[in-house]
Amino acid sequence: MAEAVVDTVTSVPVAVVGAGPAGLMLAHLLGRAGVATVVVDTRTRHEIETTQRAGILEAGAARDLVETGVSDRVLHEGHEHEGIELRFGGRPHRIDFKELVGASAWLYPQTDVFTDLANARDRDGGTVLFGVKDTEVLDITTAAPRVRVTASDGTRHEIRARYVVGADGSRSTCRDLVPEDRRVRYGKEYPFAWFGIMAEAPTSAPELVYAHSEHGFALISRRTETVQRMYFQCGPDESAAAWTDDRIWETLQARVAGRDGFRLREGRILERTVLRFRSFVQEPMRWGSLVLAGDAAHTVPPTGARGLNLALHDVKVLAGVLLRALGGAGDGALDDYQPRALQRVWRAQNFSSWMTRLLHTAPGDDAFDLRRQLGELDNVAGSRAGRTYLAEQYTGWPTGA
Amino acid sequence: MAEAVVDTVTSVPVAVVGAGPAGLMLAHLLGRAGVATVVVDTRTRHEIETTQRAGILEAGAARDLVETGVSDRVLHEGHEHEGIELRFGGRPHRIDFKELVGASAWLYPQTDVFTDLANARDRDGGTVLFGVKDTEVLDITTAAPRVRVTASDGTRHEIRARYVVGADGSRSTCRDLVPEDRRVRYGKEYPFAWFGIMAEAPTSAPELVYAHSEHGFALISRRTETVQRMYFQCGPDESAAAWTDDRIWETLQARVAGRDGFRLREGRILERTVLRFRSFVQEPMRWGSLVLAGDAAHTVPPTGARGLNLALHDVKVLAGVLLRALGGAGDGALDDYQPRALQRVWRAQNFSSWMTRLLHTAPGDDAFDLRRQLGELDNVAGSRAGRTYLAEQYTGWPTGA
Repeated sequence: MAEAVVDTVTSVPVAVVGAGPAGLMLAHLLGRAGVATVVVDTRTRHEIETTQRAGILEAGAARDLVETGVSDRVLHEGHEHEGIELRFGGRPHRIDFKELVGASAWLYPQTDVFTDLANARDRDGGTVLFGVKDTEVLDITTAAPRVRVTASDGTRHEIRARYVVGADGSRSTCRDLVPEDRRVRYGKEYPFAWFGIMAEAPTSAPELVYAHSEHGFALISRRTETVQRMYFQCGPDESAAAWTDDRIWETLQARVAGRDGFRLREGRILERTVLRFRSFVQEPMRWGSLVLAGDAAHTVPPTGARGLNLALHDVKVLAGVLLRALGGAGDGALDDYQPRALQRVWRAQNFSSWMTRLLHTAPGDDAFDLRRQLGELDNVAGSRAGRTYLAEQYTGWPTGA
Repeated sequence: MAEAVVDTVTSVPVAVVGAGPAGLMLAHLLGRAGVATVVVDTRTRHEIETTQRAGILEAGAARDLVETGVSDRVLHEGHEHEGIELRFGGRPHRIDFKELVGASAWLYPQTDVFTDLANARDRDGGTVLFGVKDTEVLDITTAAPRVRVTASDGTRHEIRARYVVGADGSRSTCRDLVPEDRRVRYGKEYPFAWFGIMAEAPTSAPELVYAHSEHGFALISRRTETVQRMYFQCGPDESAAAWTDDRIWETLQARVAGRDGFRLREGRILERTVLRFRSFVQEPMRWGSLVLAGDAAHTVPPTGARGLNLALHDVKVLAGVLLRALGGAGDGALDDYQPRALQRVWRAQNFSSWMTRLLHTAPGDDAFDLRRQLGELDNVAGSRAGRTYLAEQYTGWPTGA
């Protein structure tokens, strides 16, 4: 079959599909080592920059942004958090990361991580094509795979590469290129979603509050001194538009209410969304010359704040592996990637689903489940080992482990 | 209504229904303080002594048997275990209680605990009526409750008391005396049971082995050097008689098989039973002059070895409270009992259901659940905090906490 005409052909060692944090960080790490990339994304830069996503970076990931020369903005505009608050039984219980495991987490929105990475690509002369259409990934079972796209100006581009990385997020099409009879997909749906709001209001608490209540879960986070991010558990098919501001605030207040009189400081609701989530893993993470990274290969419920961090871990491991492969070791070097990435993925899958079960109420839950949950929260918060067990998972594991 | 004629009337401060470890230990503790009891049980002493039950005592409970003068036999015939083995992914992973939390657990069958307590009652002149019939507990909403039974010799006995303790186990009838509209029952059924065997065989492992496998859970314990106790997860409606010895051994071997070549040492199967279990709690644990203790008030799945230990904890707290009540403080002293007992009960409920979910495969489980479980086992066994969190729950909490 004759192929369509292309206007531009570019040859680079690595083509990357997806310009989220995973794809851009990979391009950045490879670029530092002198390996050129072209990154493509169907979304415009503006779209990515204005879609609210995760907000918590492991200390190691924040350090990587600074030390690899992406930007040190996280140090000035991010907030280092040395713990979180678990609220249950109407009382606050602090999990002191610093004291327990010598670690911390950074409150720094994924949109800011993206902006830093996109700016770094611009600064360093990396090629990123936003707003492309008609993406095709071809010849991945050969040593000369290609990515074809229609750029936002209507021109057809072909990127010829040695490897293609699929970092195209939770609705990845790259992962579908692994033949159906050669891939396994693991997954779990949850019978609830998060109702997320952005509110113009003062900060209500110095640290993130993870609240368990008999009415369900709530998470109190923040974006800036004057803009707050809050979530509460809702039905998976809830319509964000159907809620009045008053009902949203009443729901949030009921979930954090307690004997200490804690109240959220309310304000104008700037944005509202219902976030559905699931647990998902696809194996293998590599097929021929195609390698998957981040949400394209695995997604987790947001409760443990693992998704963005897992994606950044993937590409840190992957960058090293690709550099060895391109440096002469060949495809064999890539064999290392999946086992090193997956061990952390399954630990994070477990942590995320544990934190989710620990704090949410599920539709079929009865009085026994609620009491058991309070027993578990007591066990965790009431024991140094329990708090440490949570803290070390929340703040991340060593790279490749 | 005219009451039936009784042959003997005994007045004691406390009447106890149920001569299992909870009832007899309570009678022993009260007896030491000079408070007389009569304990009644529908089972014969022989029946209780030959029914295999739990086998693991917290170090604190073993110490209590010795220090309160029941018997020091546990020190000579029990085995102090300083850890357990978790087997998963075909490999052993030790949880070292001694090193992690400075604690240990004693392998000492519940039947031996019972024998020690029954002998101590005989030695100390305590009254225990085994094999009674027609048990009636009367007038519990007054300050003069009574227990009426037909003794094994056919004579009718009435025990008049200030308090009646219902320690009549998981099929308690005493707990039904709390009016239906004033009690709450919390419970959870499990979609599996344990197939337990007693085998004449040499010991296969120095410590208890808790094995996770894709085929389901198995537990390798022992009774003596030559008699071993083993369990494997089976369907809740499995018939013990339907299994050949070969099939039992094949099932057990498959569940513990691993890359280290570990094999169970087989032998003649002396006894086999299918053990169903559930999670259950009834509140309140006291109604008028009736107080519930042990399995009568709460049962747990056997996976965390908590049941017997919880029962002994209940009566330790209860003995103190009853002595204060009888010593002049009155009913008010009893208000302390439920909150002190229940905090531990809910922690144990959570621990037991966690250990159960961690190690068993449930009928609806898919490949995701299996991987997540292995991720969790990795998190627990691969982290000192995780191992400590498990160890401190397995070896017990401080009394009343």
